[in-house]
Formats: sequence, structure tokens, C-alpha cells
Amino acid sequence: MNRDIGADRWKIKIAYDGTNFHGWQRQNEFRTVQGEIENAILPLSHGRELVPVYGSGRTDAGVHAHGQIAHFDLKREITPVKLYRAINGNLRKNDVKVMSAEKVDSQFDARRSAVSKEYRYRIWNAEIMEPLERLTHTHVSKPIDIDAMRTASAYFIGTHDFAAFSANPLREIESTVRTVNFIDIISTPPRLEIRVNGNGFLYKMVRSIAGFLISVGTGREKPEAVTEIMNSRIRTARVESAQPQGLTLWQVNY
Amino acid sequence: MNRDIGADRWKIKIAYDGTNFHGWQRQNEFRTVQGEIENAILPLSHGRELVPVYGSGRTDAGVHAHGQIAHFDLKREITPVKLYRAINGNLRKNDVKVMSAEKVDSQFDARRSAVSKEYRYRIWNAEIMEPLERLTHTHVSKPIDIDAMRTASAYFIGTHDFAAFSANPLREIESTVRTVNFIDIISTPPRLEIRVNGNGFLYKMVRSIAGFLISVGTGREKPEAVTEIMNSRIRTARVESAQPQGLTLWQVNY
Repeated sequence: MNRDIGADRWKIKIAYDGTNFHGWQRQNEFRTVQGEIENAILPLSHGRELVPVYGSGRTDAGVHAHGQIAHFDLKREITPVKLYRAINGNLRKNDVKVMSAEKVDSQFDARRSAVSKEYRYRIWNAEIMEPLERLTHTHVSKPIDIDAMRTASAYFIGTHDFAAFSANPLREIESTVRTVNFIDIISTPPRLEIRVNGNGFLYKMVRSIAGFLISVGTGREKPEAVTEIMNSRIRTARVESAQPQGLTLWQVNY
Repeated sequence: MNRDIGADRWKIKIAYDGTNFHGWQRQNEFRTVQGEIENAILPLSHGRELVPVYGSGRTDAGVHAHGQIAHFDLKREITPVKLYRAINGNLRKNDVKVMSAEKVDSQFDARRSAVSKEYRYRIWNAEIMEPLERLTHTHVSKPIDIDAMRTASAYFIGTHDFAAFSANPLREIESTVRTVNFIDIISTPPRLEIRVNGNGFLYKMVRSIAGFLISVGTGREKPEAVTEIMNSRIRTARVESAQPQGLTLWQVNY
């Protein structure tokens, strides 16, 4: 007999290797992170009903997460440690894990409560892609001018309309204005990592910024072009989305 | 018409993600690194005959390489850059690449000419295995005493009979005496890396050393036990082979 208890709201941190997922969002036909987590929580739920799990945002197929955050409500008395261990015990594969769990106020919302997010975009800049790094880095074989890339990155900092650096920007949301707090470019050859922190991101915004920075770094575009393209508010072929496997949702801040 | 030219001996450096290989050595039924490389060289060979490729040593299924070295003889005039690019162009998947090629003296032998080799064994020491690291690290959830591990590692340094720290030591070779030049243990929590350099290694020797160091680090064995076990010259259940995915053949020195 289950006791009739109220639901607690839980915040969990999830890490995953996106290689073998069709992204975050549950889809009936495909393996997704949200689907796997919801399936793993199901046996813990009151009456074994599906417990919807809400993420801080979606990630596309192939995109990884070090610290994706999600929330859900569970009618069950359980400690944080027992909860994340139980979910991990129910996950069938090792490419997704719940790293921690904490009980939060019922007003907490993984997406709406987030004040900023950090994504990291990894590039392998050498003639030949090192096999062991291929699932977490994008290969750029041409030499990269990192100074040019850093100059370009400065144009993205601040509050701007990022419509030209996103995909389908007007389909789901009203405003395409976002604030980028910082972009750090860390070079440890042949690795290059672009760290982007912002208050929110449009669909494919980080991959569009990374793709354009790669175009600047390899000499196809000038750093100053960022402003011109941004002001156009129109996505064109000049902005390419960098490949998904280089991208990791690193951290969500509340 | 092929010109009738002499064969050149080539030395190539190969990197691979061992996850989806049945090890180095060619097997008819399974995908192996040697098999893939030989298949990729075939179209370049005089008369399209199989060119045997000789590695510096075998690696087991799941074991990776950053700098495996191999040699082969090819009757074809070609530059080093064109050669490695041609082989890479013929490789069907991205989990193996030829990183460089150089023409060498006909006496060069990838195995016999090697003066030392370095292997790196990677451990993820935290309660939960980070999904993105699972294919290149071994998970140890218990806290590790790194000082105890370092103390134990010193007993392996030098010239010893490693029969007790290898598998099937007498099946193929006569002497089980080898020299370990150094073992460095690099701790960057939650990562722990054991770097082992020696003049040669018996079958499963590095994984046996790593496995025993893990036993010492987690308190199941004392550092001093290394000498006692080594002197027994008999492999027992006290020595466990650490899992293959943590191991990478890092470098072969000539």
C-alpha cells in the first residue's frame, strides 16, 4: 500500500554522451534522454504513472551534456542519494547518468528559473582527426587564427537580436533578443574550446556562433561581419551551424 | 602498367579508438585494426596483393592507441604525405587513422626495433562514471589512496620476472623478464592516469599492474605485496586485469 503523500519537486543534474541519442526530447520511435530518464523514474512513481521530466532546454541529436538540469514531481519519500542511485540503477545504458539530486521549492522550474547557461564547443584543429576525440570534437583541418576568432567573439557579447544566428527563430518564440555574458576561447593545441555563457539561447544559437567563429578563424569571414549579419536579422548561408558532436551543455546556473 | 620497382619499407603511426575493434590482430570473422589497415593498403599495392602490416605489438579488444607503430613493404613510389592520406581515404570508419608515415631502412622492424613503449591507463575515480569518459576510463567508485598506489608502483620499477603480472606468460615466449623504466601516477581528480614505460610488455602485463595498483589504492592489497607476488612467478586471483577500455598504447620509442 502506498501512503497518500504529497509530491516533492526534485532538481536533478544529468550528464550524457549524445552520440546514440536522438536528442533530449521524448519521441515515441526513438531513444532520447528525456525518454530514458522518464522510463527510469517510472518504477519509482506512485501508481507507476509516467512522471513528466522537464529539462532546462532541449539538446539536439549528437549534442552532449555535462550538467543538464531537469525537474519533476514525485510522490515518494526518498533521500536524494537513494533517488539518483535508483534512477541510475534503472537506466539501461551507461551513456546517461543522473549525477546528483536535490529537493527544491515547488516553484523551481528547470527552464524558467535558470539565470544563465554555459555551453562548451570543442574543436580538434589538426590535419587528421584523432579517433578517440571524434565524438566530442569537430574537426577543423585548416589552421585557425585564434586572435581573429577572439576579435569576432567580442561582437557577440552583450544583448543583441540573435535571429541571424539561430534556426527557425520565429517558429516558437516571440523575442529573438538574448544576452551573451562571455565567450572564452581556450587554446591547448590541437584542442580549441569555445565557452559561451548567456542568459538563454535560441535554437542552434551556440552552433551558429561556433560555426561563424570557425569561418572567421579559417579566413572565410572577417570578425567585423558579425555586426552586419546580426543587424540583418536574417539567417543566411553565411552562417553555418557547427556540427553537433562538438557541443556540450556544460552548466545551468540558478 | 606498373613499373617493376623495389619495395620500400614504411613506418606508420596509427591511432584508434578500440571500442569497436576485436583488437589489433587480423581475424577473418571480426573487424580488427590490422585487418582494416591491410584492407586500406591493398588498393595501393603492386598487383593489388595483400601487404602484411606488422605492429609493434598486439592490443586487445577495447584497448586504444594514440601511437601504435607498424611497418610494411610497398612496391610503389609515393611520398609520405600521399601515402598516409591514401590509406586514410581508404579506411571506411573514423575510429582508426594513420597519423604519419615515414620511409625507413629495410632493417626496421616495428616490434624488434622498439627500445621502449609507454602505455597510459586511465581511471575515473568518483561515485558516478561520467558518461562521456566511459569508453576511455575505468570506473573506480571507492576512494583511492594515491600515496599507497605510488608506493606500490615503485616495486615494479626495474628488471623483474613479471610472470605473476601477466596472462598465459609461457605460452608464446621464453623469458618473462622485462624492465619497467618508470611508472608515473598523475592525479587530476576525478581523473587518475597511470603511465607505464618499459622495454617490452608481456600479455596483459600493463592491465595486471594497473589492476593491482587499483587493489592497493582501494585498500584490498598492501604495496609491499608486489614483491611477494612477483617472486612467486605464479599468476593468481590476487592479480586482476584492469578493464581494457582504460588502456591506451601511447607511444613506441625507437
